[in-house]
Amino acid sequence: MIEKRALLTDLYQLTMAQAYLRSGIAGKEACFYIHFRENPFKGGYALSCGLEQIVEFVESYGFSDEDCEYVRSIEDATGHALFSDDFIDTLGGLRLSLDVDAAPEGSLIFAGEPVLRVMGPVMQCQLVETAILNIFNFQTLVATKASRICQVAKGPVAEFGLRRAQGPAGGLLASRAAYVGGCSSTSNVEAGKVFGLPVSGTHAHSWVMAHDSELEAFRSFAREFPTNSTLLVDTYNVAGGVKNAITVAREMEERGAELSAIRIDSGDLVWLSCMAREMLDDAGLDYVKIAASNDLDEYTIQSLNEQGAAIDMWGVGTKLATAWEQPALSGVYKLSATRNPGDDRWTAQLKISEQTAKTTLPGILAVRRYFDADGVYVGDMVYDEQLLPERDLIIDPNDELRRKDLSGFGYFSLLEPCVRGGRSVLPAKSVADIRNHALSDLARLHATNRRFLNPHTYPVGLDRALLDQRDALIRKARLID
Amino acid sequence: MIEKRALLTDLYQLTMAQAYLRSGIAGKEACFYIHFRENPFKGGYALSCGLEQIVEFVESYGFSDEDCEYVRSIEDATGHALFSDDFIDTLGGLRLSLDVDAAPEGSLIFAGEPVLRVMGPVMQCQLVETAILNIFNFQTLVATKASRICQVAKGPVAEFGLRRAQGPAGGLLASRAAYVGGCSSTSNVEAGKVFGLPVSGTHAHSWVMAHDSELEAFRSFAREFPTNSTLLVDTYNVAGGVKNAITVAREMEERGAELSAIRIDSGDLVWLSCMAREMLDDAGLDYVKIAASNDLDEYTIQSLNEQGAAIDMWGVGTKLATAWEQPALSGVYKLSATRNPGDDRWTAQLKISEQTAKTTLPGILAVRRYFDADGVYVGDMVYDEQLLPERDLIIDPNDELRRKDLSGFGYFSLLEPCVRGGRSVLPAKSVADIRNHALSDLARLHATNRRFLNPHTYPVGLDRALLDQRDALIRKARLID
Repeated sequence: MIEKRALLTDLYQLTMAQAYLRSGIAGKEACFYIHFRENPFKGGYALSCGLEQIVEFVESYGFSDEDCEYVRSIEDATGHALFSDDFIDTLGGLRLSLDVDAAPEGSLIFAGEPVLRVMGPVMQCQLVETAILNIFNFQTLVATKASRICQVAKGPVAEFGLRRAQGPAGGLLASRAAYVGGCSSTSNVEAGKVFGLPVSGTHAHSWVMAHDSELEAFRSFAREFPTNSTLLVDTYNVAGGVKNAITVAREMEERGAELSAIRIDSGDLVWLSCMAREMLDDAGLDYVKIAASNDLDEYTIQSLNEQGAAIDMWGVGTKLATAWEQPALSGVYKLSATRNPGDDRWTAQLKISEQTAKTTLPGILAVRRYFDADGVYVGDMVYDEQLLPERDLIIDPNDELRRKDLSGFGYFSLLEPCVRGGRSVLPAKSVADIRNHALSDLARLHATNRRFLNPHTYPVGLDRALLDQRDALIRKARLID
Repeated sequence: MIEKRALLTDLYQLTMAQAYLRSGIAGKEACFYIHFRENPFKGGYALSCGLEQIVEFVESYGFSDEDCEYVRSIEDATGHALFSDDFIDTLGGLRLSLDVDAAPEGSLIFAGEPVLRVMGPVMQCQLVETAILNIFNFQTLVATKASRICQVAKGPVAEFGLRRAQGPAGGLLASRAAYVGGCSSTSNVEAGKVFGLPVSGTHAHSWVMAHDSELEAFRSFAREFPTNSTLLVDTYNVAGGVKNAITVAREMEERGAELSAIRIDSGDLVWLSCMAREMLDDAGLDYVKIAASNDLDEYTIQSLNEQGAAIDMWGVGTKLATAWEQPALSGVYKLSATRNPGDDRWTAQLKISEQTAKTTLPGILAVRRYFDADGVYVGDMVYDEQLLPERDLIIDPNDELRRKDLSGFGYFSLLEPCVRGGRSVLPAKSVADIRNHALSDLARLHATNRRFLNPHTYPVGLDRALLDQRDALIRKARLID
């Protein structure tokens, strides 16, 4: 669904591409990397998601004849054609030769470190920027939100945000990312088909309203789905709804069936769930589960559980699918090195900007993730592959005197090859595999880093040589000797 | 892009559809309506958007063989096939016969009133619910956000949120909605092609970094685009960047060309824009415009203008494309009437719920919008088409003693026919036509209703007969005589 969509880009990528081409430096090589400045939701981590769609996008990249005709038709404000015929011919014949390395999907990733790297001709690197950021930012955001919600929910979480999601593909990709982050199922049938996700759902208030009585509506539904009925009990009032559900559950028992669950979608969920639990238990229906929904997120679920709500399963929609609290991840794609044709070594590049937080890291950036004897992650080192680290020591880029010695710990390289010469080298993985990786990676993060309120900051630091390289380039740009 | 996607739905629409079909009431007719409970962004209005995509979705609705095979494969938690062969055969042959009425795109719409109505066989009405809500909620949200931003921006607003948008279609539809709401252009090339929107954009920081010096980068870009160059001046520092831009602008003048603008993307935009304006004016370059960007929204733009920032043009991304402040509109789709086959009259239906705010309106709902002699809107009346209003009087549904007499004012019907018998009857309109309608409709709203802080509430009330019908149904459900 994101394949073969070269026009999924900002116009300025095309204007820069033409300028690169016609100024003769289109063959200059570049290295770009994605990082984000702050962990989403004021949390302690993010979960990488969307790589499979990024690789599909790069591998299938190309401009159709129709795309080229559209590009030819674009005019600037003065009515001049913006693009030249030779440039459009180049687009029409373009096949990407890029290399991409990235943190595998479902990996823990942290603010301040490179999480995806693109290398190749500068023009090509620019042309894919917008789509890669779009895919990475959104799925990573939703996978992270889902993992926060699933951490505090006791019992399964069903995602059903499609009706409030940001467009149809917003819903589709949100469902995928929510599952990667730990949800058990989605209501989104298309996501079930496209990604093989488990789908779930039973009936709405309108089913009850379309019948002459709630009892009749429940009876009819239970007859149709004897092994999969969750009855929504709050169309008129929950006490009456639960009473009708009990009547139907007993009728089901006589037929050898079992009511799966009831669902409450309004009102005070602590009070109502406890009341419903008591009514069900008194009726000998302790196997009937209670599901709850109604604008839930990690904070409300945590609070409901702390108050002793009798809720076994959760339905989460809007606040998950749109990442309500923070609907965009601030991932950016920055140039960190260039190389002229024929050169062996790369030249590190840096952007300073008017805001220190927007200053970038220079070099062919890579990450070592260190872990202790129990497999728990203890810190990440960002380094330049051209300047191999001499010590297992990380330095805080914003406070040079804050350091952590990681010697003696094991480590692995966070970024893995995904694309080589424009072709995928990504190992085949199902979304369930990715979800399992996410769950096991999360278990390797200390609980203090997973906390919602003022989480402990996971150590991400620079190797000494990278820090020195960065500082030398800042001095040069600011004319400090 | 939303066409022929019948699986773009929640699973429970399919389970309900099968239950309707097999319980023999699939032919029962229903009337559903969309409304939202609060205006987005704590504002005084919303702008309707997305209808064209809704009509395309309904008109092209259908299950492919592949869709049917997927539905056949869905199992419940106990491993039973969820759907029966006769139901799947029905889906495979399904063509919709629905009627849809709605507020035209670009119309002002308000909390508490029906803005779109779907009538037809109850099963069909359910099957389209999720997609219709998805399309309506997101585009309406972004169009409304854009209209707020464009109201306070002096000068054109370019939308460039694609890289942070919620998925690729999130970006595409956000660009369309942002244009409807008043933006002048988008950076999204695909949106330019698909919807015919004006596209804009020039270069990024990486263009500067990929050259040996900023001056060289500016020179090269200006040579390539002599009639369309906006130079980004904050890669290293703004004062130096403006100096280099001035050098290049003078070189362009010698060639008979003009630099269009400079852009500042970081730092204090008041201080830096005023400094840049002074430097440009001192150099005799008063025609060079200043564009600004950096996490802008209606509040920051209003504040910058109040402080006298010298900014002529705006670039707005993340906070517009994701509707940052409130990333979902709470539009819901509620059953309001049913009719058995062969009956003439509809039976009004109501949902009470545990929260009074979630109580719905019963009947075949419609809206009259009243206006004064200057064309300014003075109030909306919600009524039931089966109970024609006897007086031009509206009553607050939450406070029966709060009323407004609208006699003597002209009015029109807000909801217009869009689909009849499953076929579009929507008049052909370009996105530019819709944008013009939005701009002129907004001009008919009193300034106090457009204000950001505690806006004056636009009067939306019920006709007496509808209020009586609602109250009678609540009494009946609550067993009050």
